[in-house]
Amino acid sequence: MASVNFTKMQGTGNDYVYVNGFENTIADPAALARRISDRHFGVGSDGLVLILPSQVADVRMRMFNADGSESEMCGNAVRCVGKYARDYGLVDSDLIRVETGAGIKLVRLLFDGAGTVSGATVDMGEPELTPERIPANPPGDETRLVSHPIDVRGQVYRITAVSMGNPHAVVFTHDIDALDLTRLGPGFERHPLFPNRVNTEFAEVISPRQLRMRVWERGAGETLACGTGACATAVAAVLNGHTCREVDVELKGGTLHIHWDESSNHVHMSGAATTVFDGCYTY
Amino acid sequence: MASVNFTKMQGTGNDYVYVNGFENTIADPAALARRISDRHFGVGSDGLVLILPSQVADVRMRMFNADGSESEMCGNAVRCVGKYARDYGLVDSDLIRVETGAGIKLVRLLFDGAGTVSGATVDMGEPELTPERIPANPPGDETRLVSHPIDVRGQVYRITAVSMGNPHAVVFTHDIDALDLTRLGPGFERHPLFPNRVNTEFAEVISPRQLRMRVWERGAGETLACGTGACATAVAAVLNGHTCREVDVELKGGTLHIHWDESSNHVHMSGAATTVFDGCYTY
Repeated sequence: MASVNFTKMQGTGNDYVYVNGFENTIADPAALARRISDRHFGVGSDGLVLILPSQVADVRMRMFNADGSESEMCGNAVRCVGKYARDYGLVDSDLIRVETGAGIKLVRLLFDGAGTVSGATVDMGEPELTPERIPANPPGDETRLVSHPIDVRGQVYRITAVSMGNPHAVVFTHDIDALDLTRLGPGFERHPLFPNRVNTEFAEVISPRQLRMRVWERGAGETLACGTGACATAVAAVLNGHTCREVDVELKGGTLHIHWDESSNHVHMSGAATTVFDGCYTY
Repeated sequence: MASVNFTKMQGTGNDYVYVNGFENTIADPAALARRISDRHFGVGSDGLVLILPSQVADVRMRMFNADGSESEMCGNAVRCVGKYARDYGLVDSDLIRVETGAGIKLVRLLFDGAGTVSGATVDMGEPELTPERIPANPPGDETRLVSHPIDVRGQVYRITAVSMGNPHAVVFTHDIDALDLTRLGPGFERHPLFPNRVNTEFAEVISPRQLRMRVWERGAGETLACGTGACATAVAAVLNGHTCREVDVELKGGTLHIHWDESSNHVHMSGAATTVFDGCYTY
């Protein structure tokens, strides 16, 4: 029998079990992730995040999905890693460098009136628009795919393709609540335009400063939120002339504030990071 | 801000957040149940169980579903209440009287080799077979409905109707894994034979001592397990001559051992009760 202290945290409804790897050694994190993530027999989560010492940054995060596979990065989780590192005394700065499988991410903490960490702004880097780097295989020699028509289940949709480290197709449409994503999602995900499949965002323009979206994630189906998807959607909205460079994106799991900075070309994502409970799990 | 210590426990995959009501006063348990049960923003559970002092038994349980509604009883939860009461020193006996919304239940604790409470046997009372007390409205003057033919979506199924405090229709069939319960379940649940709707069990006879079943619960759909459903299925199996009075019932969430005692006519259900983790929730 082993036991481990953990903290359950969520950002925009993406919920992970966070474990302090400075104090705990987890022999087989993939196995623990599968076990601890089960929503009836375990703690219940989207996965397990270990917060570890880093040689090149303030902390290092390793992230294991509920099926035990390892992911490079998750924009909603990296905000929680920032809050965890500060709340549990692993760092004392407001600007935290987090080593991830997708490079070092800069996380700037946000505070509420009482001085508690309530969220964070993450520098998500530059969007990638070149088809071969998304990757996408357009029929012609397009240098970017903006409002590009594709056929899905016999209907033409106009997609804008953006990579934020992972590939996204953004569709602007009306009345996203009425869409049957279970039927539509797989048609986009496995469209031949995208050789590595694609995450798809269905977005509604509310105003030049506000978007609403639903997301269909590769291999996961519809989820409450997707940080890179919100960034890709904001970039696509600017490219299509729908919004300013700074917008609120409303997702099922909450709101993210996205700023595609003109001078640096970097996308900054701000959102909440919340501790739900602390616990001790015996296995 | 309030905070409450809790224990997450599960029995056959039915998982609840258990709170010691001897030490904590929960002002609005229905609201806390809704909040704490959310699987992304809360602790995540099928509901909230308060363990309270009782005037008439050793402890009293109150049970709130994830939607905030209150339930009388749950066979999988009452085993966990027994384990909790013993593990946390609320009782020192092996036989615990638990006051529930469906009367006082006798819970006899089971121990593993190390002396830890591993489960419990619960006296689930007498099965009710009389149609008007299930309730069911058969067309004729049947005194019990055993292998009674009904039409669901144009096909005839033979059901056996049993109440264990709540109404059940049990269907014996082959290859239960292949059944499309999402399609079939609502047809049984809302069949006109059952004025208060019905829980439906689809069961496969493996041997005279072993059954496998899947359950469609009223208002919940397919679930991992249903204690009263396993009892009703064992009773129906005896009435149809399929099994002995003592059987193992394999459900998606685990195995329950059911004994329909001939002398007392009571049904005794034995199964595991497991502590998954302890935590502290702030709200």
